[in-house]
Amino acid sequence: MMFWTLLGILCVSTSVVISNPYRVNPGPLVTATRGEPWPQPYQTTKHDGFLILRPSVFQILITGETCDILEDAVQRYTAIVTLEASVASRELRSAPRAHARQYSSFAGNLASLNVRLINPCEDMPHLNMNESYVLDVRNTTEAGSLMAKSIWGILRGLETFTHLLSRSGDGPNLALKCQTIIDKPLLQHRGLLLDTSRHYLPISDILRTLDAMSYNKMNVFHWHITDDQSFPYQSTRFPELSAKGAFHPTLTYTRENVQKIIEYARYRGIRVIPEFDTPGHTRSWGESHPDLLTPCYNDSTGAPDGTLGPLDPTESKLYPFIRELFAEIGVTFPERYIHLGGDEVPFDCWASNPRIRQYMHEHHMNDSYEQLEAEYIQNLLNITRDLNMTSIVWQEVFDNGVHLSPETVVHVWTGNQKSKLAAVTKAGFHVLLSACWYLDHLQNGGDWRKFYACDPLAFPSTVQQRELVLGGEACMWGEVVDSTNVHPRIWPRASAAAERLWSHERNPSVIYAAQRLEEHACRMNRRGIPAQPPNGPGFCIQ
Amino acid sequence: MMFWTLLGILCVSTSVVISNPYRVNPGPLVTATRGEPWPQPYQTTKHDGFLILRPSVFQILITGETCDILEDAVQRYTAIVTLEASVASRELRSAPRAHARQYSSFAGNLASLNVRLINPCEDMPHLNMNESYVLDVRNTTEAGSLMAKSIWGILRGLETFTHLLSRSGDGPNLALKCQTIIDKPLLQHRGLLLDTSRHYLPISDILRTLDAMSYNKMNVFHWHITDDQSFPYQSTRFPELSAKGAFHPTLTYTRENVQKIIEYARYRGIRVIPEFDTPGHTRSWGESHPDLLTPCYNDSTGAPDGTLGPLDPTESKLYPFIRELFAEIGVTFPERYIHLGGDEVPFDCWASNPRIRQYMHEHHMNDSYEQLEAEYIQNLLNITRDLNMTSIVWQEVFDNGVHLSPETVVHVWTGNQKSKLAAVTKAGFHVLLSACWYLDHLQNGGDWRKFYACDPLAFPSTVQQRELVLGGEACMWGEVVDSTNVHPRIWPRASAAAERLWSHERNPSVIYAAQRLEEHACRMNRRGIPAQPPNGPGFCIQ
Repeated sequence: MMFWTLLGILCVSTSVVISNPYRVNPGPLVTATRGEPWPQPYQTTKHDGFLILRPSVFQILITGETCDILEDAVQRYTAIVTLEASVASRELRSAPRAHARQYSSFAGNLASLNVRLINPCEDMPHLNMNESYVLDVRNTTEAGSLMAKSIWGILRGLETFTHLLSRSGDGPNLALKCQTIIDKPLLQHRGLLLDTSRHYLPISDILRTLDAMSYNKMNVFHWHITDDQSFPYQSTRFPELSAKGAFHPTLTYTRENVQKIIEYARYRGIRVIPEFDTPGHTRSWGESHPDLLTPCYNDSTGAPDGTLGPLDPTESKLYPFIRELFAEIGVTFPERYIHLGGDEVPFDCWASNPRIRQYMHEHHMNDSYEQLEAEYIQNLLNITRDLNMTSIVWQEVFDNGVHLSPETVVHVWTGNQKSKLAAVTKAGFHVLLSACWYLDHLQNGGDWRKFYACDPLAFPSTVQQRELVLGGEACMWGEVVDSTNVHPRIWPRASAAAERLWSHERNPSVIYAAQRLEEHACRMNRRGIPAQPPNGPGFCIQ
Repeated sequence: MMFWTLLGILCVSTSVVISNPYRVNPGPLVTATRGEPWPQPYQTTKHDGFLILRPSVFQILITGETCDILEDAVQRYTAIVTLEASVASRELRSAPRAHARQYSSFAGNLASLNVRLINPCEDMPHLNMNESYVLDVRNTTEAGSLMAKSIWGILRGLETFTHLLSRSGDGPNLALKCQTIIDKPLLQHRGLLLDTSRHYLPISDILRTLDAMSYNKMNVFHWHITDDQSFPYQSTRFPELSAKGAFHPTLTYTRENVQKIIEYARYRGIRVIPEFDTPGHTRSWGESHPDLLTPCYNDSTGAPDGTLGPLDPTESKLYPFIRELFAEIGVTFPERYIHLGGDEVPFDCWASNPRIRQYMHEHHMNDSYEQLEAEYIQNLLNITRDLNMTSIVWQEVFDNGVHLSPETVVHVWTGNQKSKLAAVTKAGFHVLLSACWYLDHLQNGGDWRKFYACDPLAFPSTVQQRELVLGGEACMWGEVVDSTNVHPRIWPRASAAAERLWSHERNPSVIYAAQRLEEHACRMNRRGIPAQPPNGPGFCIQ
């Protein structure tokens, strides 16, 4: 009897948009799905009926291997289930303007989710970690099952599980559709770049961003930590870099801060790849080490003009300094990959400097500043290779013909992305794509669609070339964002990139994505991420 | 001796940008001013020296008339002084990358600001309120003086006073330049439109917006409270309008909410002008009153197609309903002005409806749907006039040749603003400008400059025509903003409009404005308004 009462008000996942009975000219509201995951799993089989999860009795049980990462995750996701239940109980039973409802039959209670990790935990996330999992919630038993070979797959599966939940209409009880999900990512590097040099971001905002990334199954935090404008990284070997180069002595990242961020990311299966961009983008280095930068000369007077350019490759102190700094970075950041930058090196200052010109003449560089840059990067790559790091460089380094060791990763950020991807992979290098996912490029309104339209594997290529695509990153450059606006600027726009990097569907439905993203943005809102409205008019219940 | 110590680290207001000693290619950081008000006052005379305000002893003293508004304001602004002092004491004495410093001589302590209101308080802010004031802080006595004829001028002067404060470098003590400010607004209607229909905004966000408006001397909250998408206004006479037309029963504004907002605004000298937009933009009315909307017909079958269009002017129930609703609105909102909308009426549904076509034929309207709209608006204007309201209408109403009573205000929002302003004022009507201040129009980065470039008085006109410009409004339409992103979307972009509406300078320096806005955005941040970075890389100390 009670079940029949429930049935009338249960809203189980649906992809059908049902119009309001009355509708005037403006376009329809995008109707949010209920209980559909973002990003879309590799394979979903829906079964008849739905289950009811009663938060007062529900448990996530560890039935296989375990470790600190798993135990922390069980706590986090149990808290999320509780949160979803409390939101559900705050919602009124019948909203006057509720939309599509697809009635389905009650199939049983879900008393637990049994989590079975097959292999012992790995300690740190890495490029080739296994993120696949199988999630099974159906009516045969009262226990759902989540199984994975690797802790990273378990993390992704727990995330998916919470996406399946929607309000049942019966107080705090939650409904979920019976289904079996077999999931694995399309690409292994699914990143977000944050720039903490143009504006400093407090630790709390970085941690919140890591939370949001985990809600989108992104697994690389590319930390563009320094740039021209400020040097907030507190080096233990060279503390003067941030003491003088940060915007303010309080606007720095201490070693403890960095460790906290790495640990927080590790618990979420997120790698932290720092970028110390050189030889350009280093103005802030000159606040403490002006000797490392190139003095620019006035062309008419032939005298130094008082400004400083990129790092000075002819300066004898440079490479010992770089070696020491990167050695420290290698210790601070456990991640094997490091991003070396190498983008947008301005040549005019180099060209104005007599010592540089003399050096180039002696080394037969024939006024090719690309060659000078290549030499610098070559030396830097040798240093990081000696330090056992694998390097990522922005595309200019490849374009300028630097001799790269085979494991170097080239990061494509501008120009014709299809031909760039084709050229880099034809040369046999691994590649990352960001050109289509620049979050600082704004348009009016719901511009996630342009990010969603980008398929990282769509370029003229062989199978072998496509296998060199490691993935990509959404880039949140910091010129005009800080703590006040960075989260709604990123989310849910970066979610579009996250889905294209995870999901295997090559021609996904944009209409269906819009409906799922409407749900996903509200989901992020409930969890404390101020994701902005993705589509247009609408509302979330918090 | 102590004074000399102080002098070395005091930063008093300056408009000079001093470059960093080293600078690479990227453009300079915009150096924030220190202690410069936004918007710029009518007349500022700077005197020699600066004063020190010691927060432990400083007081704002009421020496003239007083009332609840003034007493509340003294509390608020005392709290702001305390806040500024606590931020100053958290700042380190010497920031390594501090910028321009202009040393000045110590002129004395400021122990109090004596506030002398000459006339008894008015109860409610209104179109013609007097917002002028004289603020004098100088070295002759230990008391600064703020004097105004009207409570509204006192409010504006207190705001300005707090803008003059900057850190002294000596713990919590604050510095301010000796100066005399004579101030008054250029235009009397300086508004911000918030749209609470496309997305619901919680009361707390509206109150925060009113705070931010007061920090920018804006004095009209134009509340676009209903539209097609939802009807959150809880009517006492017709509770079904929001019960069925709100997004959700919890996403409404009760009578108590509305009163709280009006009272909060009153204390800040801000008028609350509601807009109930008709005859278009009324889809949400149809959730409870489908009879009031026009049934649209399918052209080929000649039968109703199940959708509803604008209000149906041929429906006998319409005008009695409108009269009752607006009578209630007139009681709920004490403001004499009301915004009636009248924009973007779609004619296709009217044209499809046989009863409407019949009515138009009988009334010799010759297929001119503009005439039908005009008739509706005419009737509505008669109703609001009977209710003693003065009406504001969007420009289409004027364009369509509706006979307007002389006090009606026309609101220009689209098209060639110069010719629109010229045409409306030539016809003798008061006008408001918003066409150049649409905050939903986004560009990459610091796009406040385009808003700042708009001079509301720059159109081909006589002096008499320009006197008909009441002011203007920045418009924050709600399609893609909600609680997650509305504040950084508005601020400090709307500050550009606020200055152009307040300040008399017709060709203000954009470079100087950028420096002052950099300071002002940080000032708003400190006060809890998440204003986004206006210019580019930089930082605020909170």
